Formats: sequence, structure tokens, C-alpha cells
Amino acid sequence: MRKQFNRQAIDAMEQRFRVNFINSLSGFKSANLIGTISKDDKSNLAIVSSLVHLGANPPLIAYINRPASVPRHTLDNILETGFYTVNHVSEDMIPSAHQTSARYDVEISEFSATGLSEYWLADFPAPAVAESNLKIAMQYVEHHTLLNDTVMVIGKIECVEVSTDAVQEDGLIDMERLQTVAVSGLDCYHRPNFVKRMAYAKTDKYPQSLK
Amino acid sequence: MRKQFNRQAIDAMEQRFRVNFINSLSGFKSANLIGTISKDDKSNLAIVSSLVHLGANPPLIAYINRPASVPRHTLDNILETGFYTVNHVSEDMIPSAHQTSARYDVEISEFSATGLSEYWLADFPAPAVAESNLKIAMQYVEHHTLLNDTVMVIGKIECVEVSTDAVQEDGLIDMERLQTVAVSGLDCYHRPNFVKRMAYAKTDKYPQSLK
Repeated sequence: MRKQFNRQAIDAMEQRFRVNFINSLSGFKSANLIGTISKDDKSNLAIVSSLVHLGANPPLIAYINRPASVPRHTLDNILETGFYTVNHVSEDMIPSAHQTSARYDVEISEFSATGLSEYWLADFPAPAVAESNLKIAMQYVEHHTLLNDTVMVIGKIECVEVSTDAVQEDGLIDMERLQTVAVSGLDCYHRPNFVKRMAYAKTDKYPQSLK
Repeated sequence: MRKQFNRQAIDAMEQRFRVNFINSLSGFKSANLIGTISKDDKSNLAIVSSLVHLGANPPLIAYINRPASVPRHTLDNILETGFYTVNHVSEDMIPSAHQTSARYDVEISEFSATGLSEYWLADFPAPAVAESNLKIAMQYVEHHTLLNDTVMVIGKIECVEVSTDAVQEDGLIDMERLQTVAVSGLDCYHRPNFVKRMAYAKTDKYPQSLK
């Protein structure tokens, strides 16, 4: 049975119910760890499910950082140093990656607290995650404070480290091969299975699958 | 074998290869159709894979619209009317949903061109997609033009229509039940399978699964 939940019904939801419900609406999301370090050498690692592609040339990715009303070591470090890493979460990393969302004090590195290992790309000043099968070195470009005080952080891709056998002939990266997971809601993890790949859509042709 | 692709290597990629490669980096993304109508009653439907959760209270969702250099009927309609819908793509909708990305003239509705059906929520001025198992009625709130001329469009959730048996006790929506798909790259569709759900992370506890 289909049901409509209007604004009054949403506003009347119990708080935790509403958080789960509204967080589900954006569908399946990518699971990534953002690695940073402060000027005084304290590393930080935070899971985000809000990564979004902005463009391929120049190569730009954005993510949404929580409002200023809660501690934001990740954003503070990015604005201090100008650099960060984005690391895909694979299935075996789920427990430790999720654990980075606990509210650790700024003195405690989520790397050591969760058992994930720092990995330093040559000449790059922010720590990546050794266990991740796809690591991206990012340079901060700009940020926008949005109406609910969340912050959209935009960065330029400086370097990507990935297994070459996951990079297909036409550039598409096979994320099932990397065992990258998807998130729904706040805390639900999934392994996507390939259904089909569609050809570039043209107005004069019926939709075609590539394979 | 792991390989690093630095900025020079990325800039030197053949254009189509780079588009596929960079679009893969943001991981699994949600597949959604945005439904709009112009002031002179021409409906439009566009697939987006850039939906992002901004907050639960007030309930806000954003998406990234392409730059002004290409026709943007969706954004034009949203700014004209102030309303739009977001509709989850389920597995059986993949071919027609993907086909909405073809460059149809503004006179042609992607609904009739792709065989998807308009669905009108009571008193709501923008068309939803009848075939979609999760429909969201959105009211435009604000937009931000980003450095590469893409536009982040933010809207408030006005109403959600969904099967009640997919809404779990604690508010999480079971998207596997809805057969919602995920996208990787530009054109690759996946059906996610549940791996595990993690408990709220606390600093003094080892990571716990909920089930």
C-alpha cells in the first residue's frame, strides 16, 4: 500500500525516525573516508556519504560537511592545510570505517582508534587510508555555506591510486572489483551488483544496453 | 597492480576516457528522475545521479545541475515555477530513465518520449513519475553557482509517497524492497544487496553490527 507523508506528517515524526526516513530519501550513496591532518600533525579520518561529482575537466568533487554547531575537525584541517584525501570504503573496511563517526576528541586520531593505517602518497601532505582500494589526493578549491549551515567543500583531484585491473578500456572503473560499498540511510551498507550498462542516449534511437 | 594517475596523467587522458574515469571516482550514486513543468505546461524529465542529503530538520535535498552552457530545461522550470519532483529509479525503469538523458528539444516531453507516465500528487504543481516506487515533492529553496558553472539546487521536501511496507520500524526505508538502483560512472546500473547495518558509533565501544 502506498502512503503519502506530507510536511505535517514529517514534522510530527519522532526525531530518530525522521532522521532515518529523510536520510533514506537520497537513495544509495557512496561510502568514503576523508583523511586530513592538522598543522600540528594530528591526523583525522571521517566517513562521509555525501560525495558528489562536479566535473571531469577540471576534475572536481564536492562533499557536504556538517554544520558549524558540531566539532568539524575534517573541515578545520582542510581549511588549515588545503589538502585532504578521499578513500573508497570496501566491504572488509565497513566496521572500522563506520567507527570513525564516533565523536573522538581532536587529540585522538581515528586512524589509530579504528585500526586503519595511514598511507602517504609521495609529496602529498594529507594521509590516505592504506586499506582502501581507491585513494584520491584532493586539493581544496572553495566552499559554500548552505542555508542549514552545512558546508559544501569543493576540491580538485590531484592524484588517484587504484588497481589497474579495475580500470576498464574506456576509463570506467569497475567498483564491484574494488569491492566498494554503498550506503543507505545513516548506517546501512550494501554491495552493488551489476545490472546493465546503457549506451549514450540519442533522441532518434530506442534505449540500448551496452552489454 | 596499483598505479597512480597524477594531474598530468589525468589531463593527458583521451576525453571520453577521462569522463568515464573521473565520473567513477565518486563511487556508487543514486539514480533519480527530476520531474518539472514549464509555465506554459511543457513537462520535462531528467535523470540525475548527484542527489545529496543536506539535513533532516528541515528536510533538505540538493542536486547538481549542468552548466549554463548547455540547455537546462529542468533548472529553467524549477526557477520559473518553484516546484519539482524527485523519483527513485527502479530496475525495470532503467532503459527509459537513462533515455531521458538524450537531448530532446524543449517542445518534447521526456515523459511521452520515453514511455514513463506523469503522476500528479494532489495540489502539487510538478509531475512525478507513476512508475517510480518512491516519489518526493520538492519546493525550491536556493541555488549556488559553483566554480565550474554547475549549479547546486537546494529544495525542501514537501511530500513523500512510498509503499508503507518498505518503511521500517525506525524510519529507514528499505530500498532493496523498492528495487531502487545505484549508478556508477555515467551509464552503469547496479542493484545493491544488503551487507550489514552498523549501530551508532561510540568512542568507548568496538564497532557493532545491528544485524
